[in-house]
Amino acid sequence: MDEMRGLLASEVAQRRLDRLASHFCEANLAKEEKVSREVCAKPFQRSVNPTILANLMAGGYPADRQKIFDFFISRPDLETPVEIAKAEHRELAFKQLKALVNEASIHPMKLLMEDPARYFTITEAIGFIDVSLGVKLGVQFSLWGGSVVNLGTQKHRDKYLEGISNLKFPGCFAMTELHHGSNVQGIQTTATFDRMTDEFVINTPNDGATKWWIGNAAVHGKFASVFARLKLPCPDSHLDTDMGVHAFIVPIRSMEDHSVLPGIEIRDCGYKVGLNGVDNGALRFRNVRIPRDNLLNRFGDVSRDGGYTSKLPTINKRFAATLGELVGGRVGLAYGSVGVLKAASTVAIRYSLLRQQFGPPNKEEVSILDYQSQQQKLMPMLSSAYAFHFATEYLVARYAEMKKTHDDEIIADVHALSAGLKAYITSYTAKALNTCRESCGGHGYAAVNRFGTLRNDHDIFQTFEGDNTVLLQQVAGDLLKQYKRKFTGGALSVTWTYLRDSMSNLSQTNPVATHREGYTHLRDPRFQLDAFQYRTARLLHTAALRLRKHSKRFGSFGAWNRCLNHLLTLAESHIESVILAKFNEAIERCEDRQTRKVLNMVRDLYALDRIWKDIGTYRNQDYVSPNKAKAIHRLVEYLSYELKGAAGSLVDGFGIPDALLRAPIGLQSGQYSEYSHYVGFE
Amino acid sequence: MDEMRGLLASEVAQRRLDRLASHFCEANLAKEEKVSREVCAKPFQRSVNPTILANLMAGGYPADRQKIFDFFISRPDLETPVEIAKAEHRELAFKQLKALVNEASIHPMKLLMEDPARYFTITEAIGFIDVSLGVKLGVQFSLWGGSVVNLGTQKHRDKYLEGISNLKFPGCFAMTELHHGSNVQGIQTTATFDRMTDEFVINTPNDGATKWWIGNAAVHGKFASVFARLKLPCPDSHLDTDMGVHAFIVPIRSMEDHSVLPGIEIRDCGYKVGLNGVDNGALRFRNVRIPRDNLLNRFGDVSRDGGYTSKLPTINKRFAATLGELVGGRVGLAYGSVGVLKAASTVAIRYSLLRQQFGPPNKEEVSILDYQSQQQKLMPMLSSAYAFHFATEYLVARYAEMKKTHDDEIIADVHALSAGLKAYITSYTAKALNTCRESCGGHGYAAVNRFGTLRNDHDIFQTFEGDNTVLLQQVAGDLLKQYKRKFTGGALSVTWTYLRDSMSNLSQTNPVATHREGYTHLRDPRFQLDAFQYRTARLLHTAALRLRKHSKRFGSFGAWNRCLNHLLTLAESHIESVILAKFNEAIERCEDRQTRKVLNMVRDLYALDRIWKDIGTYRNQDYVSPNKAKAIHRLVEYLSYELKGAAGSLVDGFGIPDALLRAPIGLQSGQYSEYSHYVGFE
Repeated sequence: MDEMRGLLASEVAQRRLDRLASHFCEANLAKEEKVSREVCAKPFQRSVNPTILANLMAGGYPADRQKIFDFFISRPDLETPVEIAKAEHRELAFKQLKALVNEASIHPMKLLMEDPARYFTITEAIGFIDVSLGVKLGVQFSLWGGSVVNLGTQKHRDKYLEGISNLKFPGCFAMTELHHGSNVQGIQTTATFDRMTDEFVINTPNDGATKWWIGNAAVHGKFASVFARLKLPCPDSHLDTDMGVHAFIVPIRSMEDHSVLPGIEIRDCGYKVGLNGVDNGALRFRNVRIPRDNLLNRFGDVSRDGGYTSKLPTINKRFAATLGELVGGRVGLAYGSVGVLKAASTVAIRYSLLRQQFGPPNKEEVSILDYQSQQQKLMPMLSSAYAFHFATEYLVARYAEMKKTHDDEIIADVHALSAGLKAYITSYTAKALNTCRESCGGHGYAAVNRFGTLRNDHDIFQTFEGDNTVLLQQVAGDLLKQYKRKFTGGALSVTWTYLRDSMSNLSQTNPVATHREGYTHLRDPRFQLDAFQYRTARLLHTAALRLRKHSKRFGSFGAWNRCLNHLLTLAESHIESVILAKFNEAIERCEDRQTRKVLNMVRDLYALDRIWKDIGTYRNQDYVSPNKAKAIHRLVEYLSYELKGAAGSLVDGFGIPDALLRAPIGLQSGQYSEYSHYVGFE
Repeated sequence: MDEMRGLLASEVAQRRLDRLASHFCEANLAKEEKVSREVCAKPFQRSVNPTILANLMAGGYPADRQKIFDFFISRPDLETPVEIAKAEHRELAFKQLKALVNEASIHPMKLLMEDPARYFTITEAIGFIDVSLGVKLGVQFSLWGGSVVNLGTQKHRDKYLEGISNLKFPGCFAMTELHHGSNVQGIQTTATFDRMTDEFVINTPNDGATKWWIGNAAVHGKFASVFARLKLPCPDSHLDTDMGVHAFIVPIRSMEDHSVLPGIEIRDCGYKVGLNGVDNGALRFRNVRIPRDNLLNRFGDVSRDGGYTSKLPTINKRFAATLGELVGGRVGLAYGSVGVLKAASTVAIRYSLLRQQFGPPNKEEVSILDYQSQQQKLMPMLSSAYAFHFATEYLVARYAEMKKTHDDEIIADVHALSAGLKAYITSYTAKALNTCRESCGGHGYAAVNRFGTLRNDHDIFQTFEGDNTVLLQQVAGDLLKQYKRKFTGGALSVTWTYLRDSMSNLSQTNPVATHREGYTHLRDPRFQLDAFQYRTARLLHTAALRLRKHSKRFGSFGAWNRCLNHLLTLAESHIESVILAKFNEAIERCEDRQTRKVLNMVRDLYALDRIWKDIGTYRNQDYVSPNKAKAIHRLVEYLSYELKGAAGSLVDGFGIPDALLRAPIGLQSGQYSEYSHYVGFE
């Protein structure tokens, strides 16, 4: 045992890495690979100052993060066990949430309203405890609380805010129906105004209109903000007038004995793929009467006599305003998804550095991260985690700015940005989680090493708060709007200004640039960003042309669907451009030269790996020559190899404490052989 | 409720599809897409004769399959609940296995020995019941039973076979150690011969040598075939001679009271990401003594006086022979993985046909499979399931032939083929399962709809019985051997003969063919197969050159690692070529013209989608012109659209009964709204 511990201690591992590093670095000098001496003559790059990196990555509120870490580390009784049944998990998540508010004195509702960036810091930290807890928190504060605060008026805050904050009023956000998830405008639940009693009558007209997947509904919720079609009696007819989707506060369980209130039917949505700490339920309403005051009336109100007033002129505008207020959820998911990616890649990379298998004949085995294939799986992933970190930091800052200024331009920017980043990052992380499990082989399959839970819990991030495919279409729609503006001479919003330049260069490919394949050129952030932006601009231009052509014949819906794959690629390409630009800006802000050097390498890998992944497009446009394409591929392999030396420090930089990461194969203390103790051998 | 049922009944859905089909088909006639009239003038293709298709897909032993289906449908008490704790799941899986053998009178051990194709039919069918049951069955019969039968001699069969068959001797296959999984030759458990007592002494020398992940060990196993280094006392020295890895039968629990035997230590490997119906454990041995007879001595034996005899001359040859006998497990995994892919794609496609969301303004919503993006996610997957089906049928037939003839050429073929198909198919299916969940949105996240369990259970298919990355390297190694043979004038094995032709055409790209982009040409199986084989041959040729160059400088291990990504791509490319060739052969064998037509379309999509996915490589070699590349992409989108009309029939062809598929959103009876009943609304 002691022998093993010695063998695997990080110092020895480091020495082994050094040895291999020099071996491979020499290898990379081989002529075939055309690595310029200038690159390789530099000392092998892994000396990152851990404190500088940790500070850079800790975000704006490291003390809050630490407070949460310390609290949960001090409370092992609140730790989610490796195996836990649904019923217990639900109770535990609620207990964790109550402890967070009442014992650790973290007040998410207050932070959400006063300092959103701080709120998101907390949600990311909470995700490391248990993703179910993070979602439970999001349901209570961001969704239920957010709907009251953002869609209601002062009277609602006065009545509900305290109970929401201190968890005396656990609540639900009842929007999704069995038959309508993405298409919220198609929901069928009704809220009909009864002038006789000054009440709304909430009704579920058919099976498909059952509210579905409602968090907090199955067990803990006392209220729900219910999205329903507002129906007003029409003076001239027997039919009601449909005023579109509005939100209403509906009490669902008794404050006294928690019994389900009359007219409410609640069922348990049952066991899920993941997130079983969240009690999702189905809700039906049979003539449930609520006071007129329960209409969340910020964007539209009903008077005592059934008259309707709104500052916004149309149903569509009101609907957009209502949904628009819920954008915070997407920001939180994008941010939280990066946290999951950090945790998983930390475990996978630490294990791959220590785990040895095979080696040269009659020599010691090498670590599995010494294999080119393993580097290819994990190093671009690590670089993506860094890229996403800076992009979501920017998103959170913009969101906070939006909440402060209510500036229209920023609102539009945050909407498109949060939709795009949420979709792009959660899709990437979902795939990465599979790669992490697979790259850790059998030991990755032990539940204690977390990949299963992280994957299963995170999976639905791709779907809730806006299905990714739908969100990317919103981004594409936004880009097309910007495209039109360009031709009508309007101003582009900040994030899109690059398109003006890129678009004007579309017709001319530069034959010299096409053939440049030197490493200095390929690692130039200007070349990388140009390539990203060229691709986006080209996709946008051709999408606009195709849509215009097809619309005449097939109508806008038909034309859109005929170009759908194209539009989704366009949206992803744009988001990648934004991520890269924000990464560059973050590096420029970093004051430590050594750290900047490492981050440049991380950024190079992020950028070139993405270009290589879509090399067919670049080749098809002759944006790069065949030899340049090959040079890019070689450089991706080389950077993946070289970054390996800094990989340990880079994951340390994510700053996830061992006690919360928990995975025996992924601890910073690096005692992989401790794993055998996990099953109970002494 | 009735209204909903009516709306969603399959007839109505079909009519809706017809209407949309004609709409889109017209759309695809648009000039920009260059779809030749010849293609679209044909009636929209979806009339598959269900009986003919079902017969084609039922495999060689439909009666066995049906017998298993009928038995489990008649026994709801054996159905695995949606949520089940590890401890209960383990007992249930054992109960299911015992019922299969003792009540349904299915005798897997007998079938495995007498008619492997029939055995694999059974394992696929069993996978639809519960993948844990399939793996439990595999551990007992294929691994534990297989090691006794294939590595032992008649005395072992006489003593153990009956007990293995009737489950009185549940057993383990103890090969993997904590520190050595893939590198079996590196295992450290020892079996030292004690001449004094005529026994072997089994020992676990250190923590890392703990046998790990051993199925049947934690709870049910009474025996284990333990892989250990055979140590023989050396007459001239105090040191023992290491004779390499051999397998030994070691009793681990008492036949009387099931207590763990002296010197054996067993621990539970705990909760896993999936397959929690299988009781994996860790095993340590402290001077455990077993009779000399317990050496499984087919490939090497020890005499009473400690002498060693073997028909095989070297440790490496004996090791290869030992591992070689275990190839059946890989065949089973490849075959079973296709079953999982069929189940998941059945659910995802049926749901996507029925689920509606959004639509043209003021019109009915369309089904989500009407979206180009959803077609892109699911239709190439469906075509892959068909392609894999025929490829694994071929593999099973070759395996059966190998067991009958013991022909060296067939042995080599089956080894490479099973390694390649296992790796390629399980990796594909693992990714596809994520896509299925994601493409079904929120409802895909309900555990009852099966994606979670299928994914979590299947996940480890990528790792056990040979890590995919390691197996693909074996395929690459084999290809390089064949490449050498070609130059030394030797014969190539059957599966590789194509390389001779493809390789001789490498230097010349045909400028006419490069630019041909007509649909008749692109849908010509000859063009498709040529493209696949060209790619493989080119990758093989360049890999051989690179390896030769680097070996001089970095040794064979270093050179291999420098080319590792290249070699893995080579192996995958070869396997894709084999799959396509077997698909073509299967279509040629099909006698029904109409079915053949549909299968041709499925094959076209499989082939062209793969070519498009690697279009960068084809463009870089100027194998296809830019316009041809675009034509391929358009055709992939078009085929994905057109195949949608046959998708329902094609998944019905997989023949999985509703009662076993269970997922409410994926039933053939098509009552999607039944889903609301699942949670208990009346």
